[in-house]
Amino acid sequence: MSQDQDKTIASIGRTGLIRHIAGYSTFRSEKVVHGIGDDAAVLQPNETSFGLLSSETYVEGVEFDLSFMPFHQIGAKLISAAVSDIYAMNGQPHAVLVNLAVPNRITSDMVDDLYKGIGMACTDYGCQLSGGDLTGSHNALVISITVYGDVEKGKIVYNSGAKTDDAICVTGDIGSALAGLKVLLREKRHWQESDDPVMQPDLSEWDYVVKRQLVPVARKDTISLFHDEGIRPTSMIDVSKGLLHDLQRIATSSKKGAYIYQSALPIDLQTRKVADEMKEDVDKYALYGGEDFELMFTLPEKMVGKLAELSKEFTVIGKITDTAGRIEMQTAEGDVVVFGEEAD
Amino acid sequence: MSQDQDKTIASIGRTGLIRHIAGYSTFRSEKVVHGIGDDAAVLQPNETSFGLLSSETYVEGVEFDLSFMPFHQIGAKLISAAVSDIYAMNGQPHAVLVNLAVPNRITSDMVDDLYKGIGMACTDYGCQLSGGDLTGSHNALVISITVYGDVEKGKIVYNSGAKTDDAICVTGDIGSALAGLKVLLREKRHWQESDDPVMQPDLSEWDYVVKRQLVPVARKDTISLFHDEGIRPTSMIDVSKGLLHDLQRIATSSKKGAYIYQSALPIDLQTRKVADEMKEDVDKYALYGGEDFELMFTLPEKMVGKLAELSKEFTVIGKITDTAGRIEMQTAEGDVVVFGEEAD
Repeated sequence: MSQDQDKTIASIGRTGLIRHIAGYSTFRSEKVVHGIGDDAAVLQPNETSFGLLSSETYVEGVEFDLSFMPFHQIGAKLISAAVSDIYAMNGQPHAVLVNLAVPNRITSDMVDDLYKGIGMACTDYGCQLSGGDLTGSHNALVISITVYGDVEKGKIVYNSGAKTDDAICVTGDIGSALAGLKVLLREKRHWQESDDPVMQPDLSEWDYVVKRQLVPVARKDTISLFHDEGIRPTSMIDVSKGLLHDLQRIATSSKKGAYIYQSALPIDLQTRKVADEMKEDVDKYALYGGEDFELMFTLPEKMVGKLAELSKEFTVIGKITDTAGRIEMQTAEGDVVVFGEEAD
Repeated sequence: MSQDQDKTIASIGRTGLIRHIAGYSTFRSEKVVHGIGDDAAVLQPNETSFGLLSSETYVEGVEFDLSFMPFHQIGAKLISAAVSDIYAMNGQPHAVLVNLAVPNRITSDMVDDLYKGIGMACTDYGCQLSGGDLTGSHNALVISITVYGDVEKGKIVYNSGAKTDDAICVTGDIGSALAGLKVLLREKRHWQESDDPVMQPDLSEWDYVVKRQLVPVARKDTISLFHDEGIRPTSMIDVSKGLLHDLQRIATSSKKGAYIYQSALPIDLQTRKVADEMKEDVDKYALYGGEDFELMFTLPEKMVGKLAELSKEFTVIGKITDTAGRIEMQTAEGDVVVFGEEAD
């Protein structure tokens, strides 16, 4: 038995495994413009547009926690996560498929609530619920969301197009979804340790970060602005796995590096307060926290001024360098930290 | 608390629930031609074609059993199941996304084998593996497959187009996948009860039905024939949930009924042998057994002769009637059995 036979997924890692298994599928279809490697697959080219397709699976107890996440909010959040992948290609989402694997303890009313959230979010993003699947599950509720969209040929943005000296921009703020999760997990622990089963935690002090965790909003507004103003980033990705991970994706795909400024990371005051209370480093929240569903994009320096006149919704955090795969961060103290060649 | 709040999914049923929840999503996109109700959603119309999109989720212990299904065969089978939904619309599959939720006990070699099967099946059907997702799972391995294809506008076939007096045709034979499953489950029980942990069951007597269960083949050949010969069925569906269930779908969608002949059901000799050994009714295998991935379609009577000259791969099992939603079967004894208004 070779050593390989006992390798766990964790030991290889997500990115490594995906790269590895892609090698088993060698057929190339003329209807697929771009397969594995971006937020969405690029399909079905015609005269004017490309189709965009993305699918993700969410497992109870891994990606969501029914003890503090209401069903309608889970439904809405997963739709936001799905359409965010289409926006990250500078496209528009049109159709959503929802697959559920449902254990017995989940009642039809809970499924109803899930779909109410899905339906409301679909309306917000201009998507039609167009199908899906329903099966059983022994333990966990499992939800798979597939989203289909399109983009004009001349407007598509890949994560591989960053150029040296491009400014690296991020919409909104980052790390807040993780801060919200930390607050919710702490309250869950308090509730579990308390003698009062109906204790309702007061989360009003943390309203912003909790909302960012439970009902994140995908950046439809940014994509609308790009379209209206004819702005096309050189590369783009949604910040779903964490800023550093997603910046590594841009750097690796573009065969470039990045130099960012710690002091420029857009962090909300409430996120800082959470980190202070938890005695944790808020920059770790910003660099590694996932699920913010902000957009990170690169733009030629000269375009940044134009965008800044149009929107206050983004921050320049650094620039693209020509040292392939290398991410450097200048700390507030002026030191330079170098991050590994590839995040996982 | 209303009585409704305790309703389980099982008490409402799959079809009922899907119809119910569709009501929560009212947004209609101009890029969606046809949403819920067919084997695939119909999307992104252009001058000449429609896009087709379908997604299904498979849960370990519900849809597949790792104790007697090798990983590469699971991979290949799920791709066959996926593309079958595209063929059922008279289309061609082009791209596949695979999402995995993987528990710790699954090694990277097992995932490798799964993808080898996926890759081989993708090549067989002319599909490109174009993306997907990888996450963790506490218990069961969960696999979601999304398939994208297209169809010429003038060739699309819905399950709602059956006309009174159309012949009902089925490719290949039915009930064999269920027969194979029965054999495999019996051998699993024998193995579990035996003292010999390395006992290898001799399945050579049941090679055909076991193969039908483990490595079913989607009917690419039938769709190629239709395209080559300019044959367009009035309605079509793949036999994935069971002949009766899927015929009910055609009948209900088409607002028609069906009259079928028990003696005409295409049943393989080995399927009959399994039913005999199990002391079960083989017609139940044929009517209710799922996962055959044959195609059931309706054709005007005058077209049947033409098709029969071109192919021996199909059987006429009855005809469409104008009694909406009603399925009648003439038994071998000449009696008529009426099945419920709607299968679930």
